[in-house]
Amino acid sequence: MKPIKNFEELKEHLAKSENRLRLAVANALDEHTLEAVVQGINTGFISATLTGNREAIKKLLGENAQNPHIHFVEVGEPKMAAEEAVRLVKSGECDILMKGLVNTDVILRAILDKEKGLHSNGNVITYVSCFDIEKYHKMLFFSDPAVIPDPNKEQRIAMIKYGIETAKKFGVEKPKVALIHATEVPNPKIYYMQDYQYIMELYRSGEFGDAVLDGPVDIFVAVDKERGAIKKIPSPILGDADVLIFPDFDSANVFYKTVQTFGQAELAGLLYGADVPVVLTSRSDSTLAKFYSICMAAVLA
Amino acid sequence: MKPIKNFEELKEHLAKSENRLRLAVANALDEHTLEAVVQGINTGFISATLTGNREAIKKLLGENAQNPHIHFVEVGEPKMAAEEAVRLVKSGECDILMKGLVNTDVILRAILDKEKGLHSNGNVITYVSCFDIEKYHKMLFFSDPAVIPDPNKEQRIAMIKYGIETAKKFGVEKPKVALIHATEVPNPKIYYMQDYQYIMELYRSGEFGDAVLDGPVDIFVAVDKERGAIKKIPSPILGDADVLIFPDFDSANVFYKTVQTFGQAELAGLLYGADVPVVLTSRSDSTLAKFYSICMAAVLA
Repeated sequence: MKPIKNFEELKEHLAKSENRLRLAVANALDEHTLEAVVQGINTGFISATLTGNREAIKKLLGENAQNPHIHFVEVGEPKMAAEEAVRLVKSGECDILMKGLVNTDVILRAILDKEKGLHSNGNVITYVSCFDIEKYHKMLFFSDPAVIPDPNKEQRIAMIKYGIETAKKFGVEKPKVALIHATEVPNPKIYYMQDYQYIMELYRSGEFGDAVLDGPVDIFVAVDKERGAIKKIPSPILGDADVLIFPDFDSANVFYKTVQTFGQAELAGLLYGADVPVVLTSRSDSTLAKFYSICMAAVLA
Repeated sequence: MKPIKNFEELKEHLAKSENRLRLAVANALDEHTLEAVVQGINTGFISATLTGNREAIKKLLGENAQNPHIHFVEVGEPKMAAEEAVRLVKSGECDILMKGLVNTDVILRAILDKEKGLHSNGNVITYVSCFDIEKYHKMLFFSDPAVIPDPNKEQRIAMIKYGIETAKKFGVEKPKVALIHATEVPNPKIYYMQDYQYIMELYRSGEFGDAVLDGPVDIFVAVDKERGAIKKIPSPILGDADVLIFPDFDSANVFYKTVQTFGQAELAGLLYGADVPVVLTSRSDSTLAKFYSICMAAVLA
């Protein structure tokens, strides 16, 4: 498979799908969410089951309410709509879960419910974002801007594995993973440096399979070939990272928002660690970001 | 004074200076440093005393070695050149200090020397950067991407005061200062949230004078009016921050490098807390960044 280098290529890749993945949307009463779902249906790679107040959703959908790939499940309130969407996935009736007009904590509780939820394997729950940046030559995956404030060693390892898995699904044969820090100096006073060193040992022992890891490295060495080269650090990544692992969600969040504000980029993102990929975009995300997140979920599913 | 909104205006402002500030350059054996110094001299607001191997420096300067505003002090090795530059400032012979081809720790040691150094007041030593970003409507100051890995409360307060002082010198009457975090929710589990709350109390008690503080806020609320507004957070800053205070140097460093890599920006920066402003740019900074840093120092001096 040729690597998918931007969202346009991702869309083209999915447009060739032979089957439609079945998307369950929790309380689909949100205009941008519905627009993104319709775009996915029209591109030809999903069908959707929308939970929530059927009449209200139909009104928002307008003539798209007649689309044969859209199904409805009438549920009164957001919490029950979230639980119903989770049930649709758990029962095998749907393949991907997406948040509509529900608070994040409500849908997370439904996902994490021991009996009825979607967390059977107990995997680390975290978030992987994906940027298609005008000034970067390929997709850039990074973690975690949203869910884990201060990851521990196991959570960092899980983020790395999710990142590698995702890059491979996008056709990257040997993903390059950068463990981000302010400098290349492994200052032992920095609390997470032990984690980084442990992870690099794991890497050398083969734990991460066919991938390249390096860290600590800074943003320049990770994604800026020219500025990174000035430092003369012999990194196998030098300006060509596929995956960035940030030390905490503050630095990841700053990256996430700074690229959007001062760069030129489209984005997608998914919650990882549940039994299926979960599209958990926020209100401030555009219709396009929601659509690309559905695309990302479809590649992962 | 009309606010200085970008580096072009800063240069124009300084070109009108009636006096030249006297710059001491520690071991001036660096081509980009010398180019920046010559640019400052030609713009008309500085003269320079260059310490280090005179003949080697003259060779790098070429015909500029004859410039009447350039003086030389012959010193053999980098450490002594740094100490001599510090001495020139301490004795009152120079007004601003600049690092040439010296390791940062060497010049820092000279600055911090109890007897011969430039740290008589014991102020917090930290770094304030300044961005002129194509997609932002004014100068943006932020701290600290380089010096303090994990600031304590007193250091955060010092950063804020330096940021406000700097913005005022640039003509901003009432600087807006954003205390950055991943969200607007003051999660008590985040270790620095107590500092933020204490700082907001100080602010309400008038500690920071004529300035506006808000925090925790995220990058969108701080500098992105459109995306910040979607959150419906009633912030007095909303997309109009002059100063960003980051929780730690990882997040500040990510901001610093991400804007350069994926945005379109010019930058400057200074070490604060010594008796005079110190231009402490790094090898990877361009001649222009070094020149703008001299400009920033001249406004502060």
